Amino acid sequence: MIATDPAQLTIDTIRVLAMDAVQKANAGHPGTAMALAPVAYLLYAEEMRHDPAEPKWPGRDRFVLSAGHACILQYAALHLSGYDLALDDLKQFRQWGSRTPGHPELGHTPGVETTTGPLGQGFANGVGLAIAQRFLGERWNRPLHEIVDSWVYAICSDGDLMEGVSQEAASIAGQLGLGRLVYVYDDNHITIDGSTTLSYAAEDKGKRFEAYGWHVQHVGDPNDLDALRRAFASARAERDRPSLVVVRSHIAYPAPNAMDTAKAHGSPLGEEEVRLTKTILGFDPDEAFVVPDAVREHMTGVRERGATARAAWEERLGAWEKAYPDAAAERAQDLEQRPRDGWIEALPSFEPGEQLATRDAGQAVMRALAPFTPTLIGGAGDLAESTKTEFGGGGVFARFHAGRNVPFGVREHAMGSIVNGIVLEQGTLKPYGSTFLVFSDYMRPAVRLSALSHLDVLWIWTHDSIGLGEDGPTHQPVEHLMALRAIPNLWVVRPGDANETVAAWRLALERQGGPVAFALSRQKLPVLGGDGLADTREGPLRGGYVLWQRDPSAEPDAIVLATGSEVAIALEAARSLDANTRVVSLPCWELFDEQPGVYRDEVLPPTVTARVSIEAGVTFGWERYVGDGGTSIGVDRFGASAPYERIYEELGLTSVAVAGALTRQLG
Amino acid sequence: MIATDPAQLTIDTIRVLAMDAVQKANAGHPGTAMALAPVAYLLYAEEMRHDPAEPKWPGRDRFVLSAGHACILQYAALHLSGYDLALDDLKQFRQWGSRTPGHPELGHTPGVETTTGPLGQGFANGVGLAIAQRFLGERWNRPLHEIVDSWVYAICSDGDLMEGVSQEAASIAGQLGLGRLVYVYDDNHITIDGSTTLSYAAEDKGKRFEAYGWHVQHVGDPNDLDALRRAFASARAERDRPSLVVVRSHIAYPAPNAMDTAKAHGSPLGEEEVRLTKTILGFDPDEAFVVPDAVREHMTGVRERGATARAAWEERLGAWEKAYPDAAAERAQDLEQRPRDGWIEALPSFEPGEQLATRDAGQAVMRALAPFTPTLIGGAGDLAESTKTEFGGGGVFARFHAGRNVPFGVREHAMGSIVNGIVLEQGTLKPYGSTFLVFSDYMRPAVRLSALSHLDVLWIWTHDSIGLGEDGPTHQPVEHLMALRAIPNLWVVRPGDANETVAAWRLALERQGGPVAFALSRQKLPVLGGDGLADTREGPLRGGYVLWQRDPSAEPDAIVLATGSEVAIALEAARSLDANTRVVSLPCWELFDEQPGVYRDEVLPPTVTARVSIEAGVTFGWERYVGDGGTSIGVDRFGASAPYERIYEELGLTSVAVAGALTRQLG
Repeated sequence: MIATDPAQLTIDTIRVLAMDAVQKANAGHPGTAMALAPVAYLLYAEEMRHDPAEPKWPGRDRFVLSAGHACILQYAALHLSGYDLALDDLKQFRQWGSRTPGHPELGHTPGVETTTGPLGQGFANGVGLAIAQRFLGERWNRPLHEIVDSWVYAICSDGDLMEGVSQEAASIAGQLGLGRLVYVYDDNHITIDGSTTLSYAAEDKGKRFEAYGWHVQHVGDPNDLDALRRAFASARAERDRPSLVVVRSHIAYPAPNAMDTAKAHGSPLGEEEVRLTKTILGFDPDEAFVVPDAVREHMTGVRERGATARAAWEERLGAWEKAYPDAAAERAQDLEQRPRDGWIEALPSFEPGEQLATRDAGQAVMRALAPFTPTLIGGAGDLAESTKTEFGGGGVFARFHAGRNVPFGVREHAMGSIVNGIVLEQGTLKPYGSTFLVFSDYMRPAVRLSALSHLDVLWIWTHDSIGLGEDGPTHQPVEHLMALRAIPNLWVVRPGDANETVAAWRLALERQGGPVAFALSRQKLPVLGGDGLADTREGPLRGGYVLWQRDPSAEPDAIVLATGSEVAIALEAARSLDANTRVVSLPCWELFDEQPGVYRDEVLPPTVTARVSIEAGVTFGWERYVGDGGTSIGVDRFGASAPYERIYEELGLTSVAVAGALTRQLG
Repeated sequence: MIATDPAQLTIDTIRVLAMDAVQKANAGHPGTAMALAPVAYLLYAEEMRHDPAEPKWPGRDRFVLSAGHACILQYAALHLSGYDLALDDLKQFRQWGSRTPGHPELGHTPGVETTTGPLGQGFANGVGLAIAQRFLGERWNRPLHEIVDSWVYAICSDGDLMEGVSQEAASIAGQLGLGRLVYVYDDNHITIDGSTTLSYAAEDKGKRFEAYGWHVQHVGDPNDLDALRRAFASARAERDRPSLVVVRSHIAYPAPNAMDTAKAHGSPLGEEEVRLTKTILGFDPDEAFVVPDAVREHMTGVRERGATARAAWEERLGAWEKAYPDAAAERAQDLEQRPRDGWIEALPSFEPGEQLATRDAGQAVMRALAPFTPTLIGGAGDLAESTKTEFGGGGVFARFHAGRNVPFGVREHAMGSIVNGIVLEQGTLKPYGSTFLVFSDYMRPAVRLSALSHLDVLWIWTHDSIGLGEDGPTHQPVEHLMALRAIPNLWVVRPGDANETVAAWRLALERQGGPVAFALSRQKLPVLGGDGLADTREGPLRGGYVLWQRDPSAEPDAIVLATGSEVAIALEAARSLDANTRVVSLPCWELFDEQPGVYRDEVLPPTVTARVSIEAGVTFGWERYVGDGGTSIGVDRFGASAPYERIYEELGLTSVAVAGALTRQLG
């Protein structure tokens, strides 16, 4: 029989919409949506502060569906709450161009805070949101004037909890005491391959989270709304620890045959089972996508409550602006999402003759930028001293102080996903994460999502080649530059010296629409200079440029291309030859490829086919620039443990080798 | 004063050797080696069954230094135990061509069981070794005749425990009740960036491991040998749960100034501190690399004990062989590390006209292979039903039965590292791990190590493009093929139809010296056939081959290259044209590039520059084969959520587009 209680009726409507949308698409994940309909209902209708009319209102609570496959749950909740998401959108579930893609995607659907689906990512994004909130709270809030006080809610699945990235993120959240996290764990005893007895039964998940320092509660049945309400209230009462609410659910509830089966996880229930379930719920089995009027009426309260909450927050904001005009002015500048005026003039410049690693140059830039970029925050995966990415005097982000330096620990993957989460906080903060380039592999799923979601984050990877020396092949990236260049919308910048590193930072702070990654050297490099050299602080701003040519007035005889630590080697080789050789520095391929064809042809004239490239990584991919007639010098093998000068020598990455290759090309 | 107790003197000698080697190399990690010298001593001198004269004796216990940066600890222990590792080798620490690289590397040093350094990998490798041991134990052991009963010991650092991969692996080890794991956790309260209060203090690590189902013990001081001995004995007494021994250590003990400092983690102590520490230990500060005679004498016992243990095991083996000649014959075949005779003849063949996904073809191959490959074991990251990688009737690997199907759960990274560990068990087993291609990112550090360490493992990745459809861009790999092709020594095979999938499996089972990875389709593909088609079950064995040409007797006018699901599209396009177009299928680039130049030129005649490639992934990298004049059709963006046919159409991956590009090339 159909529910008379409007809350229950709304919950059942979510279930029916989930079944119908998945059935119509003939693809999707109905089970979790059906089971957790009460949780979504409570969050959207009672628990969270949010305003469907203004999905990006800064004072809202954040909701992250870490179990992104269950997105129809969120879409249904958004629709019923009155977001700009129509019933027709639900009918277009998983179709080309729709606002209801197969997993939640940032920018496609109002009310979706982050792109999820790859498991564990949303879990860690939420931790990033909470870090951002705490940082901005400490920055902006004043006694009796709190303008940053949002909560972060998430729904997580077994898969989310099994993933390493969530375990790392949970450990960080416990360490930092992020009390404003309220995570629901959908403990349904089912994974895609069957019962959790297969792979996830021995573990006591609640105890594990307690070990991380979380506050853990258990709810025996999601249909017990009062139990859920009590758990949420207790979670909010606990300010010093993140909260996990373990909800024992039954996937596909109340489908008579599909409930508690693995099949209900990722497949439509089938027409007949949908009919049976609708009958159980008192819905007409012959109708689809039905929202009872009573539900529509009931859910108008969400919009009203949201408008009231938003008005209250705006009033608070107004009072705060009045009481603290200086802080308000600061905030206004923060929200512009760019460094303070004067930052470009403040950037350091390095003199030829100096020898310094580009990681050290990066540190010098960060020092210079510090006063201009108060919202640039981040840290390293327990390598801040090696990657040189600490803001001196910026303080450490800890339980009782939201410093600029976030100590991620040896948790690269969570670092990546947390950095993504930090930037999701209205884009107010410019976050970065740092580790050795070889360990970009550990965080690659997060890097991919930063590119896919157009997040303006910064990845600072150092120790960028065999040039790190003694640590050996496990620590020496060789394939990483190419593997990263393969990711759409990621800019990879490998500066050739200290001044190019300054330019790299300009790119990083000026780019909008996607992440920038640095590959910086561990070893010292000469600051490039001397007769006829182009401006190394400007050239990289076009991705690639002519660094030097023996006789710039004539067409070159040959071109040598290089990036990073190999630019100096290329230059030395070119200078050693009598031929009219041109040296092209190519620190950012993606940006160079975006330049107008005329500029690219100017730098790399198509008629000049005598070309040599040198880069301390795999040569695969250099064909794009050296062409059919060219030669690439690189490292098409794993590295070796030894002082780096020896490795360069043994692997043939020398100016003599470049000069020889050029000579052969010319001969 | 110098120790009079020979055990203590040996321990102190390890400390001194560690200091000296790092100091001489002027690079390395002395602190942990000094602190854990007693642990290494006990393991090598008392606890483990191992024979320095025969490092690969199958009956040995395994030792994994998950904290690979502390490798000088293991090198010193190996040297003192009498392995073929001389004092001169220690003096060559971290030098070109030495047997003592900066992190342990498989194949470089006798007694090193696995390549470690990237944190958490060794931890998970050990779990793989234990899984392999349990599998082989169940396969070979008979009542009263145990020939497989080794223990797996590991030393793990804070960094190891923070990494997600170890957390995933710990959860699996608890789930499977791998009682023969004895892991020492070096709880030294120090990470590279400083005190663990920064990033790793809130967590109760012991409690976390209890939550995973581990047996946890605490030892207050590694210098308390009896406490360590008791802990090891208790760990061995506990057969149903893996054991963690938390040892509260002091990094760089007993260096007067360096102890308990982060600097002692990754830097030489400095000449002066080394002198002071030697003085404290009663060693001559003016001498380096000194091994007292008493230590040499004391450690001869290790070799004697090892020889005795090995003799006893060999006797057991002999008795077993006598008692169970059939099992012995099976074992002898298992050890040949290839499928049983007849396997090639048993491979299936598919008829043109059929439509099936290459993942389904893969499943058919696995079914056919099952009786021929009893040591082929593996599983999926909770996607066995989707990747179709389950051995029907092979049983599930669980606490009380070592089936062929290992349920890894949603833990791709640990899956990768565990698969690497499984193959480390003498290479007897052929393990595989499986998930969606997009999630190869989650396990990439393990994939890299499989290539670096020349491990003959198999990665089965399915849902290999936008062709997976509705799940959308988070699940659609676009950059992955190229990113994987960039890894040295990894073969990536993307078969174009069911018969090419058969060939892919041949490559996987026949390759020696490195991993093979499959990229298989979710969507159905036509079985290629018709007039003039090459043998699709043979062609891929050379990496790439001429699949079809309108008039094979003449030089082609144009060439279209493709892999995987796009081969059929390429063929359709070529057949639609009157020009003498050649279709080249290129399922494995690495193997094709290894072919003799004459063969490569036969397939891709340099004179034929009208070339088009099509692959449902980024075009970056295709320049290698299409050349300066060519065109590449691909997906240089992230995908979209929709039925796959629509995505192919919208993104221009059609035979019409290929035919158009060919026509332009020819025109």
